[in-house]
Amino acid sequence: MQEKIVKIGLVGFGTVGSGVAKIILEDADRLADKTGLRLQLACVVDSDLKRERPVQLPQGILTNDLNKLLSDKSIQIGIELVGGTGIAKEIQLKLLAAGKDVVTANKALLAKHGIELYAAAEKADRCIAFEASCAGGIPIISGIRTGLAANDISAIYGIVNGTCNYILSKMTSNAEEFAEALAQAQQRGYAEADPIIDISGGDSAHKLAILASIAFGCQISLDDIYVEGIQHVSKTDVQFGGEMGYMLKLLAIAEKNQQGRISLRVHPSFVNSENRLAQVDGSFNAISIFGHAVGNVLFIGRGAGMLPTASAVVADVIDVALGNSATIFNHLRLKPRNEVVGLIDKIDNLVSRFYIRLMAKDQPGVFAQVGKVLADNAISISGVLQHEAHGPDDSVPVVITTHPNRQANITAALKGLADLNTVSAAPVCIRIVDIPEDNE
Amino acid sequence: MQEKIVKIGLVGFGTVGSGVAKIILEDADRLADKTGLRLQLACVVDSDLKRERPVQLPQGILTNDLNKLLSDKSIQIGIELVGGTGIAKEIQLKLLAAGKDVVTANKALLAKHGIELYAAAEKADRCIAFEASCAGGIPIISGIRTGLAANDISAIYGIVNGTCNYILSKMTSNAEEFAEALAQAQQRGYAEADPIIDISGGDSAHKLAILASIAFGCQISLDDIYVEGIQHVSKTDVQFGGEMGYMLKLLAIAEKNQQGRISLRVHPSFVNSENRLAQVDGSFNAISIFGHAVGNVLFIGRGAGMLPTASAVVADVIDVALGNSATIFNHLRLKPRNEVVGLIDKIDNLVSRFYIRLMAKDQPGVFAQVGKVLADNAISISGVLQHEAHGPDDSVPVVITTHPNRQANITAALKGLADLNTVSAAPVCIRIVDIPEDNE
Repeated sequence: MQEKIVKIGLVGFGTVGSGVAKIILEDADRLADKTGLRLQLACVVDSDLKRERPVQLPQGILTNDLNKLLSDKSIQIGIELVGGTGIAKEIQLKLLAAGKDVVTANKALLAKHGIELYAAAEKADRCIAFEASCAGGIPIISGIRTGLAANDISAIYGIVNGTCNYILSKMTSNAEEFAEALAQAQQRGYAEADPIIDISGGDSAHKLAILASIAFGCQISLDDIYVEGIQHVSKTDVQFGGEMGYMLKLLAIAEKNQQGRISLRVHPSFVNSENRLAQVDGSFNAISIFGHAVGNVLFIGRGAGMLPTASAVVADVIDVALGNSATIFNHLRLKPRNEVVGLIDKIDNLVSRFYIRLMAKDQPGVFAQVGKVLADNAISISGVLQHEAHGPDDSVPVVITTHPNRQANITAALKGLADLNTVSAAPVCIRIVDIPEDNE
Repeated sequence: MQEKIVKIGLVGFGTVGSGVAKIILEDADRLADKTGLRLQLACVVDSDLKRERPVQLPQGILTNDLNKLLSDKSIQIGIELVGGTGIAKEIQLKLLAAGKDVVTANKALLAKHGIELYAAAEKADRCIAFEASCAGGIPIISGIRTGLAANDISAIYGIVNGTCNYILSKMTSNAEEFAEALAQAQQRGYAEADPIIDISGGDSAHKLAILASIAFGCQISLDDIYVEGIQHVSKTDVQFGGEMGYMLKLLAIAEKNQQGRISLRVHPSFVNSENRLAQVDGSFNAISIFGHAVGNVLFIGRGAGMLPTASAVVADVIDVALGNSATIFNHLRLKPRNEVVGLIDKIDNLVSRFYIRLMAKDQPGVFAQVGKVLADNAISISGVLQHEAHGPDDSVPVVITTHPNRQANITAALKGLADLNTVSAAPVCIRIVDIPEDNE
């Protein structure tokens, strides 16, 4: 079979960009053998022409002028790896307008402006491929869109931010406080100098918006997603949760009930320690999907890093060049916003179990008071844990887990508990996420 | 967007066939919404027209005459779910000759006659899609071919037979002997009345042949695969292995070394209990893949069953109808047999660690004799376990684990050990598979 030459332009020559260049340059023969496609890196655009990168580009292809790429008609695919939602958007729009298909890892941009970009691609009769935008090297986008295409997907539970998973794993295994674990993650390159987008849950929300949109076939807005980060998690709660059989994870959750109502949220979550997701630690990502036919499928792998992310980018390049991305993209029928808005459940309506920790004064009547507040809000207790040791100010930590209840009731109860004069600090509340079992 | 009508003929109306019919009939609207394709079940062929099935077909489409399907020009896709390597092959060839694309779950057929069938498909300008042939609902074929396309894959470690995994799990958790666990599996529907194809490792070998061929891009023959089943595994070894930190799994293993040499084998394998594969129990399947860019990716899910397998079949139907299967199929460039044969490593060359259990007479000099046999074969001991309790005939079980060594040396040593007059039964030998770690 004759080889088909595929010319590629790359915008953004940072870590992932270097990985992509490395694979395209070093593995061209192997990929041509395997796919019949001869990938050629024709142009690399970056504002920094000087920095040392772990890959040597052929003479003359590195430029700081995007127009060189745009005006080269022989370039079929433009890879945008600039990141962010500003200039990256302009770049993608220009690539599409110049008749190039777009491959990107930019979750923030797709989560915020995906609808607009998809429309621009449709208008230009081009496609946007974004396997690398979620969970790095794990082929989760193609998994959902192709491999699980027959399924009515009811839920996704994802560990989709390696930084947070690394920090929470260290807090669990080494009994470290958040700040220590974060410092270590930064030292080892698992967290940025400014980690806010990761630890706030923002990055997970971007990925959830993309995953939920393709899984449920809906235009999802970031506003649909309730987000809490891990910044305020303390090792005390990681430990108490552990004693009660739970592991703390930052989960990105998309659930659709039988009436078609959709719940989207990112928050610290206590997961049963026996669940496979609980056992995914360190910087790994994992995504658990429930489909009406397939049951439960779990994907585990590296969610970030130069080569794992580049693996997904180059997979998309191949898929675009084969013409498959276009077919799938053209059949990506997302329900429009006006039909979706009414389906999104607000967090107040969430029914969940909850972990609540109070710092209670060690005096008679505390349990009666606490019990009354819970009872007044129709909250039923599932478990209680109080050690005999004392906390600061002669207060003792009391941990309560609840039976399923509405978030709104819990929120009201938390306020009532905080107001008690026998409770010495604002109660801590963490959702317990009971991931369904796909039993034998 | 206008809906495209896709007419489908189904051959084989058993368990999986019923699941496929169910999804196509009951979910047609949802799938049309999602994909733009209106799937229509136009003809169902089965020799048994009477049996009750869990789905109600429209009047007049069930027939025992394959020609009705073949002669219906409006049918674009033929699904072969007859199974086996006899009539199923004729059916696939006829479907292709009649101008229909083929979707199948038939691993035995593809493993044995894949090369011939792929050639027939190419000649007919049609494609064969076989996502359902490996690991049921887990989208592993599309994962390897699309999502991981950029990777040079170095290894696959798979639990790809749910029957065996169920039996081994029960032997582990309930300390049952093989026969008991098998009987239970049969009772619960996890094993066939005649379970030989599963417990012999044959079914796993079929799947491994398919996975290895697409992962390594080679025409693989079943003869390339060394196969041992689980029929002779005893709970004694499951327990001793457990004490030493190992879990027993039937693994399908494909490894490619840096010189391109390929090792393919299916056998009972002791896996470190901490490894994620070790923790996959019951009837679940799991496939761990190592790629040069992606690192390690693990897929876990249901490897069998009516709806999980139907999930994969219908995914293929959609992919074929969109035209993507054809593109991928046409780019499936498998290295021909004459180039592959020389790359396959024979089992004697395998370098592995081994678990050996002897029943030794409780008398002086045994360890000296055993040690000499091992030393004579250049085998270095990694661990020894001998309890103070006695076995039958006043013999005691002695368990030895080795450092990595060649299979040929171990085979010679096993013969030497069996010949010792202080060893009362043929030694048991199980390979220890050290799955690489993808560390932080």
